[in-house]
Amino acid sequence: MFVDPEHVDDEQESYRQCMRLALTEAERAMEADEVPVGAVIVRGNQVIAAAHNQRETLADPTAHAEMIAITQAASTLGDWRLTECTLFVTLEPCPMCAGAILQARIPHVVFGALDPKAGSVTSLYQLLEDRRLNHTASVTGGVLAEECGRILSDFFASQRKLGKK
Amino acid sequence: MFVDPEHVDDEQESYRQCMRLALTEAERAMEADEVPVGAVIVRGNQVIAAAHNQRETLADPTAHAEMIAITQAASTLGDWRLTECTLFVTLEPCPMCAGAILQARIPHVVFGALDPKAGSVTSLYQLLEDRRLNHTASVTGGVLAEECGRILSDFFASQRKLGKK
Repeated sequence: MFVDPEHVDDEQESYRQCMRLALTEAERAMEADEVPVGAVIVRGNQVIAAAHNQRETLADPTAHAEMIAITQAASTLGDWRLTECTLFVTLEPCPMCAGAILQARIPHVVFGALDPKAGSVTSLYQLLEDRRLNHTASVTGGVLAEECGRILSDFFASQRKLGKK
Repeated sequence: MFVDPEHVDDEQESYRQCMRLALTEAERAMEADEVPVGAVIVRGNQVIAAAHNQRETLADPTAHAEMIAITQAASTLGDWRLTECTLFVTLEPCPMCAGAILQARIPHVVFGALDPKAGSVTSLYQLLEDRRLNHTASVTGGVLAEECGRILSDFFASQRKLGKK
Protein backbone atom coordinates (compact mmCIF):
# COMPACT_ATOMS: atom_id res chain seq x y z
CA MET A 1 0.00 0.00 0.00
CA PHE A 2 1.46 3.39 -0.95
CA VAL A 3 1.03 6.94 0.21
CA ASP A 4 0.72 8.77 -3.08
CA PRO A 5 3.18 11.69 -3.02
CA GLU A 6 1.25 13.51 -5.80
CA HIS A 7 -1.58 14.14 -3.38
CA VAL A 8 0.58 15.24 -0.48
CA ASP A 9 0.77 19.04 -0.34
CA ASP A 10 2.84 19.24 2.80
CA GLU A 11 3.90 17.31 5.86
CA GLN A 12 0.63 17.94 7.68
CA GLU A 13 -1.42 16.63 4.76
CA SER A 14 0.81 13.55 4.61
CA TYR A 15 0.19 13.00 8.34
CA ARG A 16 -3.57 13.31 7.81
CA GLN A 17 -3.42 10.86 4.90
CA CYS A 18 -1.68 8.24 7.05
CA MET A 19 -3.99 8.92 9.99
CA ARG A 20 -6.98 8.26 7.72
CA LEU A 21 -5.55 4.78 7.12
CA ALA A 22 -5.22 4.32 10.89
CA LEU A 23 -8.85 5.49 11.24
CA THR A 24 -9.93 2.85 8.71
CA GLU A 25 -8.27 0.30 10.98
CA ALA A 26 -10.12 1.77 14.00
CA GLU A 27 -13.38 1.29 12.07
CA ARG A 28 -12.48 -2.38 11.61
CA ALA A 29 -12.01 -2.69 15.38
CA MET A 30 -15.43 -1.04 15.89
CA GLU A 31 -17.05 -3.55 13.53
CA ALA A 32 -15.51 -6.37 15.59
CA ASP A 33 -16.88 -4.86 18.82
CA GLU A 34 -13.38 -3.89 19.96
CA VAL A 35 -12.36 -0.51 21.42
CA PRO A 36 -11.76 1.35 18.12
CA VAL A 37 -8.08 2.20 17.92
CA GLY A 38 -6.06 1.75 14.73
CA ALA A 39 -2.39 2.08 13.81
CA VAL A 40 -0.23 2.06 10.71
CA ILE A 41 3.54 2.06 10.29
CA VAL A 42 5.09 3.87 7.34
CA ARG A 43 8.63 3.52 5.99
CA GLY A 44 9.55 5.98 3.26
CA ASN A 45 6.30 6.30 1.37
CA GLN A 46 5.21 2.72 2.00
CA VAL A 47 2.75 1.48 4.60
CA ILE A 48 4.41 -1.67 5.97
CA ALA A 49 1.92 -2.47 8.74
CA ALA A 50 -1.74 -1.75 9.53
CA ALA A 51 -3.56 -3.12 12.55
CA HIS A 52 -6.37 -2.52 15.01
CA ASN A 53 -7.03 -3.37 18.61
CA GLN A 54 -7.89 -7.07 18.94
CA ARG A 55 -7.82 -7.62 22.69
CA GLU A 56 -11.21 -9.35 22.86
CA THR A 57 -10.94 -11.21 19.55
CA LEU A 58 -7.54 -12.71 20.41
CA ALA A 59 -8.18 -12.81 24.20
CA ASP A 60 -4.73 -11.23 24.49
CA PRO A 61 -4.12 -8.23 26.78
CA THR A 62 -1.09 -7.23 24.70
CA ALA A 63 -3.05 -7.04 21.41
CA HIS A 64 -3.27 -3.26 21.12
CA ALA A 65 -3.19 -1.78 17.61
CA GLU A 66 0.36 -0.45 18.02
CA MET A 67 1.74 -3.76 19.33
CA ILE A 68 0.34 -5.77 16.44
CA ALA A 69 1.53 -3.17 13.92
CA ILE A 70 5.05 -3.18 15.41
CA THR A 71 5.30 -6.99 15.29
CA GLN A 72 3.92 -6.92 11.74
CA ALA A 73 6.42 -4.26 10.59
CA ALA A 74 9.36 -6.11 12.17
CA SER A 75 8.21 -9.31 10.47
CA THR A 76 7.97 -7.51 7.12
CA LEU A 77 11.48 -6.07 7.48
CA GLY A 78 12.96 -9.19 9.14
CA ASP A 79 14.50 -6.90 11.76
CA TRP A 80 13.30 -5.77 15.19
CA ARG A 81 14.81 -2.32 14.62
CA LEU A 82 12.23 -0.02 13.02
CA THR A 83 14.69 2.87 12.86
CA GLU A 84 13.38 4.34 9.61
CA CYS A 85 9.69 4.09 10.43
CA THR A 86 6.92 6.40 11.60
CA LEU A 87 4.03 4.99 13.64
CA PHE A 88 0.59 6.58 13.24
CA VAL A 89 -2.04 5.74 15.85
CA THR A 90 -5.51 7.17 16.43
CA LEU A 91 -5.12 7.34 20.25
CA GLU A 92 -2.20 8.46 22.39
CA PRO A 93 -0.21 5.30 23.31
CA CYS A 94 -0.49 3.70 26.78
CA PRO A 95 2.65 2.76 28.82
CA MET A 96 2.89 -0.68 27.14
CA CYS A 97 2.73 0.73 23.61
CA ALA A 98 5.02 3.68 24.37
CA GLY A 99 7.49 1.15 25.78
CA ALA A 100 7.20 -1.00 22.65
CA ILE A 101 7.87 2.05 20.47
CA LEU A 102 11.12 2.57 22.43
CA GLN A 103 12.02 -1.13 22.16
CA ALA A 104 11.51 -0.96 18.38
CA ARG A 105 13.65 2.20 18.09
CA ILE A 106 10.87 3.99 16.16
CA PRO A 107 12.06 7.59 15.80
CA HIS A 108 8.72 9.36 15.23
CA VAL A 109 5.17 8.83 16.48
CA VAL A 110 2.07 10.66 15.23
CA PHE A 111 -1.12 10.26 17.23
CA GLY A 112 -4.70 11.52 16.96
CA ALA A 113 -6.70 11.95 20.18
CA LEU A 114 -5.20 12.48 23.63
CA ASP A 115 -5.83 9.80 26.25
CA PRO A 116 -6.02 11.61 29.60
CA LYS A 117 -6.57 8.29 31.46
CA ALA A 118 -3.56 6.29 30.27
CA GLY A 119 -1.69 8.31 27.63
CA SER A 120 2.03 8.01 28.21
CA VAL A 121 3.63 10.15 25.55
CA THR A 122 2.01 13.45 26.59
CA SER A 123 -0.77 13.10 29.17
CA LEU A 124 0.37 11.07 32.23
CA TYR A 125 3.97 10.38 31.23
CA GLN A 126 6.32 11.56 28.51
CA LEU A 127 8.06 8.20 28.10
CA LEU A 128 9.33 8.90 24.59
CA GLU A 129 11.28 11.96 25.78
CA ASP A 130 13.02 10.33 28.75
CA ARG A 131 16.74 10.59 28.06
CA ARG A 132 17.55 8.09 30.82
CA LEU A 133 16.16 5.34 28.54
CA ASN A 134 18.31 4.11 25.65
CA HIS A 135 16.10 5.60 22.94
CA THR A 136 13.85 8.62 22.48
CA ALA A 137 11.25 9.43 19.81
CA SER A 138 9.72 12.65 18.60
CA VAL A 139 5.96 13.03 18.93
CA THR A 140 3.33 14.84 16.86
CA GLY A 141 -0.09 14.83 18.52
CA GLY A 142 -3.59 15.98 17.56
CA VAL A 143 -3.67 14.86 13.90
CA LEU A 144 -7.37 14.33 13.00
CA ALA A 145 -7.93 14.41 16.78
CA GLU A 146 -11.66 15.08 16.46
CA GLU A 147 -12.39 12.08 14.19
CA CYS A 148 -10.06 9.84 16.22
CA GLY A 149 -11.80 10.84 19.46
CA ARG A 150 -15.32 10.69 18.02
CA ILE A 151 -15.12 7.03 16.98
CA LEU A 152 -14.11 6.19 20.57
CA SER A 153 -16.88 8.23 22.21
CA ASP A 154 -19.44 6.77 19.77
CA PHE A 155 -18.24 3.27 20.68
CA PHE A 156 -18.45 3.82 24.43
CA ALA A 157 -21.88 5.51 24.08
CA SER A 158 -23.21 2.50 22.17
CA GLN A 159 -21.66 0.11 24.72
CA ARG A 160 -23.33 2.01 27.56
CA LYS A 161 -26.67 1.79 25.72
CA LEU A 162 -26.21 -1.98 25.54
CA GLY A 163 -25.22 -1.98 29.24
CA LYS A 164 -21.82 -3.47 28.35
CA LYS A 165 -19.33 -0.94 29.70
CA MET B 1 3.94 -28.02 35.83
CA PHE B 2 3.29 -27.74 39.57
CA VAL B 3 4.88 -25.96 42.48
CA ASP B 4 5.08 -28.74 45.06
CA PRO B 5 3.55 -27.41 48.30
CA GLU B 6 5.38 -30.06 50.38
CA HIS B 7 8.66 -28.34 49.66
CA VAL B 8 7.46 -24.82 50.29
CA ASP B 9 8.26 -23.74 53.84
CA ASP B 10 7.00 -20.21 53.56
CA GLU B 11 6.08 -17.50 51.08
CA GLN B 12 9.70 -16.53 50.48
CA GLU B 13 10.69 -20.12 49.66
CA SER B 14 7.74 -20.38 47.29
CA TYR B 15 8.92 -17.19 45.57
CA ARG B 16 12.43 -18.61 45.23
CA GLN B 17 11.05 -21.84 43.83
CA CYS B 18 9.15 -19.98 41.09
CA MET B 19 12.10 -17.68 40.43
CA ARG B 20 14.29 -20.75 39.84
CA LEU B 21 11.88 -21.73 37.05
CA ALA B 22 12.21 -18.22 35.60
CA LEU B 23 16.01 -18.58 35.84
CA THR B 24 15.81 -21.85 33.89
CA GLU B 25 14.01 -19.87 31.19
CA ALA B 26 16.76 -17.21 31.32
CA GLU B 27 19.32 -19.99 30.75
CA ARG B 28 17.39 -21.04 27.65
CA ALA B 29 17.63 -17.45 26.37
CA MET B 30 21.39 -17.50 27.05
CA GLU B 31 21.78 -20.74 25.06
CA ALA B 32 19.98 -19.06 22.15
CA ASP B 33 22.33 -16.04 22.33
CA GLU B 34 19.53 -13.82 23.64
CA VAL B 35 19.76 -11.39 26.59
CA PRO B 36 19.03 -13.91 29.39
CA VAL B 37 15.75 -12.91 30.99
CA GLY B 38 13.08 -15.45 31.91
CA ALA B 39 9.53 -15.26 33.23
CA VAL B 40 6.85 -17.60 34.54
CA ILE B 41 3.22 -16.98 35.44
CA VAL B 42 1.66 -18.91 38.30
CA ARG B 43 -2.05 -19.33 39.10
CA GLY B 44 -2.81 -21.06 42.37
CA ASN B 45 -0.02 -23.63 42.54
CA GLN B 46 0.15 -24.14 38.80
CA VAL B 47 2.66 -22.66 36.38
CA ILE B 48 0.53 -21.65 33.39
CA ALA B 49 3.22 -19.90 31.32
CA ALA B 50 7.01 -19.97 31.03
CA ALA B 51 8.97 -17.94 28.49
CA HIS B 52 12.27 -16.27 27.77
CA ASN B 53 13.41 -13.27 25.81
CA GLN B 54 13.30 -14.04 22.07
CA ARG B 55 13.84 -10.65 20.49
CA GLU B 56 16.60 -11.79 18.14
CA THR B 57 15.20 -15.25 17.39
CA LEU B 58 11.76 -13.88 16.45
CA ALA B 59 13.09 -10.53 15.12
CA ASP B 60 10.33 -8.98 17.21
CA PRO B 61 11.04 -5.98 19.48
CA THR B 62 8.02 -6.88 21.65
CA ALA B 63 9.24 -10.43 22.36
CA HIS B 64 10.42 -9.89 25.94
CA ALA B 65 10.01 -12.83 28.36
CA GLU B 66 7.11 -11.18 30.22
CA MET B 67 5.19 -10.34 27.01
CA ILE B 68 5.40 -13.89 25.68
CA ALA B 69 4.45 -15.33 29.08
CA ILE B 70 1.43 -12.99 29.36
CA THR B 71 0.15 -13.91 25.88
CA GLN B 72 0.74 -17.60 26.69
CA ALA B 73 -1.12 -17.40 30.03
CA ALA B 74 -4.07 -15.55 28.43
CA SER B 75 -4.18 -18.17 25.70
CA THR B 76 -4.16 -20.99 28.30
CA LEU B 77 -7.01 -19.36 30.25
CA GLY B 78 -8.90 -18.13 27.17
CA ASP B 79 -9.21 -14.74 28.87
CA TRP B 80 -7.07 -11.59 28.67
CA ARG B 81 -7.69 -10.92 32.38
CA LEU B 82 -4.96 -12.58 34.47
CA THR B 83 -6.53 -11.41 37.73
CA GLU B 84 -5.56 -14.46 39.78
CA CYS B 85 -1.99 -14.75 38.55
CA THR B 86 1.48 -13.84 39.81
CA LEU B 87 4.22 -13.04 37.33
CA PHE B 88 7.82 -13.95 38.21
CA VAL B 89 10.59 -12.41 36.13
CA THR B 90 14.36 -12.47 36.58
CA LEU B 91 14.81 -8.76 35.72
CA GLU B 92 12.79 -5.71 36.74
CA PRO B 93 10.26 -5.04 33.94
CA CYS B 94 10.80 -2.25 31.37
CA PRO B 95 8.01 0.28 30.55
CA MET B 96 6.53 -2.02 27.87
CA CYS B 97 6.33 -5.04 30.16
CA ALA B 98 5.11 -3.03 33.17
CA GLY B 99 2.39 -1.63 30.91
CA ALA B 100 1.46 -5.13 29.73
CA ILE B 101 1.20 -6.30 33.37
CA LEU B 102 -1.32 -3.48 33.93
CA GLN B 103 -3.21 -4.35 30.74
CA ALA B 104 -3.45 -7.98 31.89
CA ARG B 105 -4.67 -6.95 35.37
CA ILE B 106 -1.97 -9.08 37.02
CA PRO B 107 -2.20 -8.26 40.75
CA HIS B 108 1.30 -9.28 41.89
CA VAL B 109 4.74 -9.19 40.32
CA VAL B 110 7.91 -10.75 41.75
CA PHE B 111 11.22 -9.84 40.16
CA GLY B 112 14.87 -10.74 40.67
CA ALA B 113 17.52 -8.17 39.74
CA LEU B 114 16.95 -4.43 39.55
CA ASP B 115 17.35 -2.75 36.16
CA PRO B 116 18.69 0.74 36.86
CA LYS B 117 18.71 1.56 33.11
CA ALA B 118 15.08 0.80 32.18
CA GLY B 119 13.33 -0.69 35.21
CA SER B 120 9.86 0.76 35.51
CA VAL B 121 8.39 -0.80 38.61
CA THR B 122 11.01 0.51 41.07
CA SER B 123 14.08 2.09 39.44
CA LEU B 124 13.06 4.77 36.89
CA TYR B 125 9.28 4.64 37.26
CA GLN B 126 6.82 3.00 39.63
CA LEU B 127 4.22 2.31 36.94
CA LEU B 128 2.49 -0.48 38.88
CA GLU B 129 1.70 1.85 41.79
CA ASP B 130 0.24 4.72 39.74
CA ARG B 131 -3.35 5.13 40.96
CA ARG B 132 -4.23 7.35 37.98
CA LEU B 133 -4.10 4.22 35.80
CA ASN B 134 -7.03 1.80 35.92
CA HIS B 135 -5.11 -0.98 37.64
CA THR B 136 -2.26 -1.31 40.14
CA ALA B 137 -0.14 -4.31 41.15
CA SER B 138 1.92 -5.11 44.21
CA VAL B 139 5.63 -5.70 43.69
CA THR B 140 8.18 -7.93 45.45
CA GLY B 141 11.74 -7.30 44.26
CA GLY B 142 15.15 -8.85 44.91
CA VAL B 143 14.17 -12.57 44.90
CA LEU B 144 17.34 -14.50 43.91
CA ALA B 145 18.65 -11.12 42.80
CA GLU B 146 22.29 -12.25 42.75
CA GLU B 147 21.70 -15.27 40.46
CA CYS B 148 19.33 -13.26 38.24
CA GLY B 149 21.88 -10.45 37.88
CA ARG B 150 24.87 -12.77 37.45
CA ILE B 151 23.49 -14.53 34.37
CA LEU B 152 23.05 -11.10 32.76
CA SER B 153 26.53 -9.84 33.62
CA ASP B 154 28.05 -13.14 32.44
CA PHE B 155 26.17 -12.78 29.14
CA PHE B 156 27.28 -9.21 28.54
CA ALA B 157 30.88 -10.05 29.52
CA SER B 158 30.94 -12.90 26.98
CA GLN B 159 29.36 -10.65 24.33
CA ARG B 160 32.03 -8.00 24.93
CA LYS B 161 34.75 -10.66 24.57
CA LEU B 162 33.26 -11.57 21.22
CA GLY B 163 33.06 -7.86 20.36
CA LYS B 164 29.30 -8.11 19.90
CA LYS B 165 27.88 -5.61 22.41
